[in-house]
Formats: sequence, structure tokens, C-alpha cells
Amino acid sequence: MKKINVAVAGLGRIGKIHLKNLCRNFSDVQVVAVMDLLDESKTIADQFNIPVFVKDFDQLLAVPELDAVVICSPTDTHADYVVKAANAGKQIFCEKPLDLSLDRVKQVLETVKGAGVKLMLGFNRRFDPEFKKIRQLVLDDAVGDVQIVKITSRDPGPPPVSYVKVSGGMFLDMTIHDFDMARYISGKAVKEVYAKGAVMVDPEIGKVGDVDTAIITLTFEDGSMAVIDNCRKAVYGYDQRLEVFGSKGMAQAENNFPNNHKLYTKDGISGDLPLNFFLERYDASYNQEMAEFIDALVSGGEVPVDGNDGLLSIAIGLAAKKSMVENRPVTLTEIL
Amino acid sequence: MKKINVAVAGLGRIGKIHLKNLCRNFSDVQVVAVMDLLDESKTIADQFNIPVFVKDFDQLLAVPELDAVVICSPTDTHADYVVKAANAGKQIFCEKPLDLSLDRVKQVLETVKGAGVKLMLGFNRRFDPEFKKIRQLVLDDAVGDVQIVKITSRDPGPPPVSYVKVSGGMFLDMTIHDFDMARYISGKAVKEVYAKGAVMVDPEIGKVGDVDTAIITLTFEDGSMAVIDNCRKAVYGYDQRLEVFGSKGMAQAENNFPNNHKLYTKDGISGDLPLNFFLERYDASYNQEMAEFIDALVSGGEVPVDGNDGLLSIAIGLAAKKSMVENRPVTLTEIL
Amino acid sequence: MKKINVAVAGLGRIGKIHLKNLCRNFSDVQVVAVMDLLDESKTIADQFNIPVFVKDFDQLLAVPELDAVVICSPTDTHADYVVKAANAGKQIFCEKPLDLSLDRVKQVLETVKGAGVKLMLGFNRRFDPEFKKIRQLVLDDAVGDVQIVKITSRDPGPPPVSYVKVSGGMFLDMTIHDFDMARYISGKAVKEVYAKGAVMVDPEIGKVGDVDTAIITLTFEDGSMAVIDNCRKAVYGYDQRLEVFGSKGMAQAENNFPNNHKLYTKDGISGDLPLNFFLERYDASYNQEMAEFIDALVSGGEVPVDGNDGLLSIAIGLAAKKSMVENRPVTLTEIL
Amino acid sequence: MKKINVAVAGLGRIGKIHLKNLCRNFSDVQVVAVMDLLDESKTIADQFNIPVFVKDFDQLLAVPELDAVVICSPTDTHADYVVKAANAGKQIFCEKPLDLSLDRVKQVLETVKGAGVKLMLGFNRRFDPEFKKIRQLVLDDAVGDVQIVKITSRDPGPPPVSYVKVSGGMFLDMTIHDFDMARYISGKAVKEVYAKGAVMVDPEIGKVGDVDTAIITLTFEDGSMAVIDNCRKAVYGYDQRLEVFGSKGMAQAENNFPNNHKLYTKDGISGDLPLNFFLERYDASYNQEMAEFIDALVSGGEVPVDGNDGLLSIAIGLAAKKSMVENRPVTLTEIL
Repeated sequence: MKKINVAVAGLGRIGKIHLKNLCRNFSDVQVVAVMDLLDESKTIADQFNIPVFVKDFDQLLAVPELDAVVICSPTDTHADYVVKAANAGKQIFCEKPLDLSLDRVKQVLETVKGAGVKLMLGFNRRFDPEFKKIRQLVLDDAVGDVQIVKITSRDPGPPPVSYVKVSGGMFLDMTIHDFDMARYISGKAVKEVYAKGAVMVDPEIGKVGDVDTAIITLTFEDGSMAVIDNCRKAVYGYDQRLEVFGSKGMAQAENNFPNNHKLYTKDGISGDLPLNFFLERYDASYNQEMAEFIDALVSGGEVPVDGNDGLLSIAIGLAAKKSMVENRPVTLTEIL
Repeated sequence: MKKINVAVAGLGRIGKIHLKNLCRNFSDVQVVAVMDLLDESKTIADQFNIPVFVKDFDQLLAVPELDAVVICSPTDTHADYVVKAANAGKQIFCEKPLDLSLDRVKQVLETVKGAGVKLMLGFNRRFDPEFKKIRQLVLDDAVGDVQIVKITSRDPGPPPVSYVKVSGGMFLDMTIHDFDMARYISGKAVKEVYAKGAVMVDPEIGKVGDVDTAIITLTFEDGSMAVIDNCRKAVYGYDQRLEVFGSKGMAQAENNFPNNHKLYTKDGISGDLPLNFFLERYDASYNQEMAEFIDALVSGGEVPVDGNDGLLSIAIGLAAKKSMVENRPVTLTEIL
Repeated sequence: MKKINVAVAGLGRIGKIHLKNLCRNFSDVQVVAVMDLLDESKTIADQFNIPVFVKDFDQLLAVPELDAVVICSPTDTHADYVVKAANAGKQIFCEKPLDLSLDRVKQVLETVKGAGVKLMLGFNRRFDPEFKKIRQLVLDDAVGDVQIVKITSRDPGPPPVSYVKVSGGMFLDMTIHDFDMARYISGKAVKEVYAKGAVMVDPEIGKVGDVDTAIITLTFEDGSMAVIDNCRKAVYGYDQRLEVFGSKGMAQAENNFPNNHKLYTKDGISGDLPLNFFLERYDASYNQEMAEFIDALVSGGEVPVDGNDGLLSIAIGLAAKKSMVENRPVTLTEIL
Repeated sequence: MKKINVAVAGLGRIGKIHLKNLCRNFSDVQVVAVMDLLDESKTIADQFNIPVFVKDFDQLLAVPELDAVVICSPTDTHADYVVKAANAGKQIFCEKPLDLSLDRVKQVLETVKGAGVKLMLGFNRRFDPEFKKIRQLVLDDAVGDVQIVKITSRDPGPPPVSYVKVSGGMFLDMTIHDFDMARYISGKAVKEVYAKGAVMVDPEIGKVGDVDTAIITLTFEDGSMAVIDNCRKAVYGYDQRLEVFGSKGMAQAENNFPNNHKLYTKDGISGDLPLNFFLERYDASYNQEMAEFIDALVSGGEVPVDGNDGLLSIAIGLAAKKSMVENRPVTLTEIL
């Protein structure tokens, strides 16, 4: 069997995860090259016996017989790299978001479309076994018509303020996952967004124009609703829960835990906190999303999360920002 | 010890609960009279050995040496009865809401204030052991500064449309409990309301101008938030949950169940549905609220839920209605 | 409707529970007299408006038109009182155990049989909603053929050593409930007992010849088994759990809790300890067993726990003692 | 860094697991050869790029510069292979049990001792994160003095009767893991065993002289106890639970589940069954035990499960068989 030749661009936290999964878990994949700006990253390439290490994306694309690129570089390079890869006729997996500018995203998607290559966006949470199970229950009609989607998404701690400044704000950096999740779980199109935010974790976040705590209500085209609550800091760890309520029932996904022990003492019953770090919590999802990307390449089928999914999540995020600033519900038609 | 002489007006579902609790569980209370419009209700009076049964509220107030009245009659009688009882110098426990008109409620509270009697409102859920525990954890600073309050409140089934028509709508009939709960749990004042509703259970409810499914975001004076999700029909029963998220942690109250068994079979693990009916689910709360009313009478202290609590819940409900109709956040100052 | 006239003998902890339930919760019962050795207990009688208070059991039986007696006096009076009540033709409810001597129990049961009165034993745990549900699942064949019954039964703290000395030992005082539960849940007859005990809580308990920690294996007639683990002291409270494993599945009853809150903080997830005291934990069961006793009197039907159940529990307890002392399995035929 | 050269003997289910883990997860390990009787197994060797594939254990040992062997071949080869490997001076990891004959085990251990090589036994459950956590809580004195250990261990289905016949019986094949777990969790020495068994799953198992359902009580040297309940068939899947009760509290490990969703419908609340297959349930443990074996080789330290652990588990299993047959408690001194 001919192997698919893949290159990985960017060897930060996510890049390393994808590299490891691509090297270890897929017998039909050959990682032929990696790219990173830092010299030190060469040791990672060596550790996985990757024959080519480069520091420039054009050089990466020039590697002979390359089939696909996995883009894990900083957000502000995503659009450029995707365009280059598309023009080079490579299949593309790109971490979210494509870009913080909706116009730029639209341009990129045009290019990708014109090039006839596949583009998959890294909304990894769709591939988490817990959330996938809930989606399956919805598809199986176990909850009936979806009436309310509830997403709790709280981080263990805020990123540095320097990052917050360039992140596009909480809605585009953090809630964007939840916007995608609301669309994925319900299978519905978002019509309107109302976002209410507050600075309750760190005043410095407020000083750079962002919020750290928020409640966002999404209204779908059919009038059903989703509600998301976010906070940049939950002292008890990474809080990732989901609930779908419908005409036939309700399905819930709880947090994941390092282990399930319970300790009973004279002081009470206690147990472990949820898995604290997103790489641990969503470990299985990263492998699964890559597996489904590879499957699409092998089969020639559709990727499970495409450019339009990326576009819509950004649009909802921009609508949420506008809603919060203007303190009124904002329709997606105002944004798109 | 001199007993407190109490009369009960209205022997519907709630009236019977209060009557039973007053007769059985308080050694310092004597129920001296009951009132109901129906002749048949006399058998209830007899069953509890109540010496006086009348069909008219004025006759009830005329019973000698009466200290207090417990008003459980239909909503549209509440304001009149409270005014009469206040003018007669009786202590008053009244089921919620006082009235659907804010002006009328204000008048009633003026009268009560002038008469110098106590008025306690029947927001029984404050006395539920689960929710009381959560409130205590907030008071004990176990969750730190409250940032988000989340309330799930779904009924097992909708009331008859004939009732919906006169109920004041879901926000004043059903969500009013949740508005009070948000204030109680957080100990904060509501500043603004945004409500989004839909008709997803029964189109007939829509035809009479109400909704049956809703997400309501409350903003407190300090910028922190509460979010409530409601539905008139949860096929799996009465869903009453609460979560408080703050700077030091999160506290959750789960549903209550008839029993806690688990059955493991080849088809999966299953267990009982939540307690289905509000009288069962909130059984303990009805007794506890009456105990605290009686305590206030005996001690001369403050009642734990007063007329202003009643007023504010109605105001929030009216703001929610306005918000939904106009699809914009509404401040309480627009209403009060 | 003619009421059933009941007298209560013994106003200790259990006696007061039965008195309260009989007075409050049964419209077809009239408590006509109570007996207790202590003068102070008269105030209890007064509180419940009981017309007759006596200090002697014969006087109690002499109360005119008495239908039934509820015997809650100390264990060493049970046999005498039951015999007297039977000879007087009264229906009898008696707390367990009937006596610590198997011969005496057999005599008593002969007398009761000869008198043609009903005798119900107070194995209240059979009437606990949790355990009743498990029994129902067995009856409904939800677990199939019962293969293993597992009972965890641990007390929050040991009784005084002075009590341990006269209690008949842990197996007859504490495990006797679990022996009855094993029979009740399985619906099977016990054939053989193997008990292993240790003194791990308090050496003083060992000095008076008893153990405080034990594992007991029961073998039923058909070869299926039950296992009970006991301890006189669980620092985390009253631990009362049950599991039935069979050919079609497994059913579990968990502990009961004061409330179900969970608190998430940086230190972990915590919740309340189980209900700590048997009167709270088994509150509902005391009322339910009395309701079924009253039902049997009204209907003339069988009592749900009869003298033979009392006899067998004592026999199993004696077999367990013998097994532990001789460190070998003991068959019931050696005892009965 | 010099890599440790490892060979794997036997590529059945467990062999493949160890091979995969050794190849993928340890940067300081080189798998230099594998052995299996079947020609087809060569494809597995190829898949992992193992340079040498042989069908004979002596050939495996002859591979140049070999440091260690991992023995996953059938039970009846364990003793021979361990002796050969020890005589060849190789470090040894061997699946349990070493042999079904205690004398043979003793001989093997003598040889290993004489050869001065390490021998680690594959009691993988010690390395399960859930059980390791419970052991850690015991070591941390969170449960105080251990008084009772409770182990529930039920398989999803019985092995073929042909296998049962040669397996040494349930106690040596299945319960042996639980015997080791009781020793591991308590850190105590077993003094006496009482086992009660029954044939309740499949009469054919009885015909070949074995049981399929059992309760085993272990008494430790200090009088504290463990109780194990086993069944060859739990229709709801693989049931692996653990509880430790002590003077300061109780710690519990629950089953592991494919996911934690809950579905609420009008028919009840349901969720997934436990992970059904031991390879899934104990996946993490296999990697962890290999990591600790490798660590011992690298550091020159002690292996965490040694030959004596293997010997004692077999001795307890033989005592359990004797106890069941003679229906009496059997001390280990009768066996060893």
C-alpha cells in the first residue's frame, strides 16, 4: 500500500501531539518532513526519525511527493500557509482559527475551493469520545428534537495578558470551540447571538479590552437555543461539560477524571478533580481527528470539519463580540 | 405556652400541604379555622379536627383570637386577602405571586407596611435542603465571589392551556421561582434581564401568547451573571438543578430521586428518574418554610422572604416578558 | 370506621418513633395507652394526648378494648411480654430479637401459635425504600437467579462495652439485621454459616468476649451465597449498602445522604457523608413497617415478618458465633 | 544512551500488547527479536520492524547482545523458559503464573536466585491507575489501619471448558489476580484462606471439577481480613472493583467506563456498561508495568513484583482449592 506523505508545520504543543500521533498510530502515513522556526525543534524531528527538518514553509511544500500538510503554526500564519499549500495542491489540516478577519477567511476558502484540495479545521472537541457519544445520541433520535444545548466551558487559568491582547478576545480564542460544539451537537444553523461578559478574574484582561467570564445565548434558525457559560479561570480545573435537552430526553457528558476513586473519611467524601489540562482532557480527540483526516485522504471522501465550519465559528465569535459591546442580540446576517 | 392561632385560606394542593404540616409538626401552633369555596373541603377540615370551616375570607378573619392567616387561595385573590388580613392586624403567609400587576403589589405592600404586620411570601424552594445547603456554602465563602449562577428548571409537563392563559405567562408563573432563587443564592440585586423564548412543546401555548421553552440571562449589579433554562415539559420528569460558580470553587445541587438503586444488565446501567411532582420534590421545603414563618411569629423576628422579595420577582418576570417581546436586554429600572 | 386500639410498651428511641408514627400517620389507629418504667415518660404520653400512661405491662394489657401491642421495651422483656400479650389475645408487634435463647424463642412461638394471634418482628430494614426496591427487582426477575448477595453494614461507632456484654454479641445484636436482609433479598433459606471476626476497634470489646469486625459467608440451600462485612465503627458514618448479583444482572443500593451537593474547590471534589444515625437513615422504614402491620390487622392478612423470621435470624446468629469460635463452617441443622 | 535489547516470547493477546508498548513508548528500549510458534506471527514482527523472528526459545536467547526477555507464551512453558533465560543470564519479565506446581515454582525461583537475574511477574493490575491510587491512599495513611479489603472481580464470560480443564481451576487462573491484589493493597501477609464455591454459570464447568462462582475470605497475619467475590460471567460486563476499609476511612475504586454520558428519557436514566474486555480495562496497566520493569533494568533497582509474589499467589490459590474441597479454613503453612 502506498503511504500518504505528510508534513507538519509548527512543533508547539499541538504540533508535537499531531506529530506523535501521525508517527505512531497510522500505518498508512509517513511523516516525511517537519518545519519549525526554532533550531531546537530539530531534536524533536530526530526523535521521531523524520528525514527532513526545515525552518521555512515554502521549503516544506517543496519536499518531493508530499501529499498533505498539517498546519500547527501560530494563528497569524494560518491563512498564508493554507493559501500556499492549496496553491501547491496539497491536502490541508489546519488548526483553528483560519484567521481573525472574516474577509481574509473568505478569500482563503475561495482559494482552497479553486485549488480543489481538502481543508480540515482542527475543532478537535468534535472527536472527543464523550461529545461524539452525545452527538450520536442526537443522531439516533434518543433525545428527540433538540430544544436546548448547554455547554459549560471553563479553563483552569487565563493565558498571559500578552496573549489575550492578540488572541482576538475570549470569544474568538476560547468560546470559538463552544460555538462549533453547539453547531455540531445540534446539527443546526445559528441565527442570532446574545453575549454578556464581565471581567471577574483579572482586571488586566479588562484593560486590554477583553472579558474573562461570559454567558452567551445562541438562537438557531428554528428557534431552539444554546447557552454557553465561560470563564478563564476555574480553580478546580478544566471544566468541560455538555447537555442536550430535547423532546424525547436529555443527554449529558460529564467531566473526565484522572481516576474515579472515592475517599470517605470523618471529614466527608472526596475525589479527584477533573483532568486539568486540555492536552490530557482531549488526548483521544487529537488522535481521532487525525484518523478521520487521514481516512478522508485515503477514501477521497469529505473531511468531517471543513472551511465553512471554520468560517461560521469565527462569524459567531464576531457576532458575540458585537453583541457584548452593543448589549443587544446580533444576527449572523449582520456579520456574514 | 400560648399557642399561635392560625387559619388557612384555600385547601387546594398547597393549602392541604400547609394544613397538614401546621397540624402535625408544630407543637406551638393551633389551626383554629380553615376556609374554602367548596363544600367538599369540609371533610378535610374534619379529618384534621379543625373546629371552624367557613367559605368566606371575612368570616375567617372574624374567628376570635386569630393570630395569623396562611393564604393558599387562587392568585387573583392574593392581593385582596392580604390587604384584608393586614387591615385586620393578622400576621400573613401568602403563596406567590402577590399579584401580576406591579402597581397593585406596591399598593398591597404599602398597606402591609402601614398595618405593621409581617408578610411572608411562599418561595418554598429557598427552604429546600439541597438549595439551602448551596446558599450556606456561598455564605461560608466556600465558593468565593459568585461569578455565575446556573439554574435548570424544567417541569414534567405543561399546565392546561386554560391555566396558561391566566397565569401571567411562563416567566411570572414558573420562572418566578428561579428569579427568586437567583437572588437568594447569590445574595445580589438584579440589574438587567435578557430573555429568549420559544414554543417547542405545544403550539396551543404559543397561540395564547406564551412560550414554553426559554433561556434567561440575569445581570447582577456587580456585573456577575445568572442563567436560567426553562421548559414546560421534560419527558424524564421534574428537573431542578442549581450550580454556583465563584472565585474559590463551584457548588452543585443535583436532582432528588425516589431511590438511589442502580441496575446493571446486559443492556446498560439504569436508575430511577428524578422525583416527578413538585409536592414530592419540595415536600421538606414546605414544612421548613412554615417552621421559619412560625419562628418569626414566636420570636418577633424578620420573616425570611418578605414582600419586597415578592415585588422583585414579579418585576424581573415583567422585565423578562418585555425583553423577550422586544428582543433586547431590559433593566429593572425600566420596570420598577 | 372502627379504629384499631393500640398500646405501646417502652418509650425509648424506637418506642418514641413508633408512637409518633402511630399517632400521626394512620387515620385508622387510636393509641389508647403507653407504658414505660420511667415517670418522666409521662410527658411524652401527654404530648401525644395519650389517655392512659402505666408503668406495668399487665396494666397495659388490661386497658379495655385494646386490639394490639407494640413492644419496644428492652430485649430481656420481649419473650415475657409477647407471651402475656398472646395469652391476652392481643395482636403483637415486637422489636427484634425475641430472645437470645433459641429454646425460649421456640416456646414463645408455640404460645403465639396456640393463641392464634399475629406476631410481627421489627426487622425494619426490609421496609427501607432502597432495599425494598432491590427486593422488588429480584421479584421482577430483573437480576435473574440470585448468585451472590453482598451486604455492607457498618456502624458509626460501637455501643458502650456494658451494652456489648449483654447484647448477645455482634452477630446477635448487629449482624442479625443483615442475616434477615440476606434471607429477605434472596428469598432463600440459609444452610451454612462461616464467620471470621476480629477485634480491631476497641480491645475492651475483645475482653468481654466479642468481636467488632467480621466477614460472614452464608451458603443458601441451593449453593448460592451471601457475604456480609461488619464493623462496629466506620469513622465516616453509618454505612449501609446492598448488592445482588444474578444471572441477568446486578442491583445495588447505595447509602443515603443528608443532601446531594457537590463542592469543587482547588483541593478536590467533596460531598456530604452518609446519614449518620440509624433513626435518620431508616426513618421511612419505621413508618412503613408499622403501616404494613396495621394493614395486616385491618385486612386479617399475614404479617410481612413473622416469628419464624425472628427464629431463623437468631439461629443464623448463633451459628455464626459457633463458627467463629470453632473456626469452621456450621450448618443451621446443628443449631435448630 | 545505550538501549536495552529486549526479546518477546509469545505473540498472543498479551504478547502483542507488550510488543506494541515496548516498541512505541520507551525510547531506551530496542526490541531486537520476537518468538512465536506460528508462522503467521511473522507479519506482526514485520509490522513493528523487528529484525529477528524465530520459532524457538533457545534461538531467541541466542540473539546477540540480548538483555532481557518478556515471556508471554502459554502457562506450561513459563517455568522452562524462565529457567533457560536465567541460565543464559537474561533479565526476565514473565506473565503469571510461573507454574501450577508449587514445587516447580520453588525450583524456578532457586535457579533465578542462583543466576542473579531479575524476575518480574506480570500482575498487571497492580499498575492500574485506579488500584495504584488506592494503594497510594493506604500508604499515605488516608484510610488508617486496614481492617477489611473487598475485591469484586467478575468476568464478562467464562473461557471455553477446554481451557478451564487445564487452567488449574478458577482460583489459580482468575482469582490469582485478586489474591495478589489483596496482598498488594493491604501490604499484609495472608495467614489463612476460606473458600466457598458453586457452579451457577455453566454445569459443564462443574463436570470438569471446577466452580464458576465463589466467595473467598482471606485472614491476614494481624487478624484483619479480605473478602473476594468472583464469577466467571457477569452479563453486564467486566466488573472490577476494590474497597479498603480502615480506622481512618474507606477508599473505593469503581469500574471504568467507555464514556460517562447519562441519558434521561421517560423510561429512566441510563449509561454505558463498564469496559468489557480486560485488554481495554487494563490497557494503561500493561504499559505501566513494562515501564517499571524497564526502570528496574535501567536503574538496577528492585522489580515491583517479584518471584515471591508469584509463589505466594499460587500458594493462596492452592489453599483456596483445598479449603473449598474440604470445606474448612486452610492456613498457608499447610501449603508452603
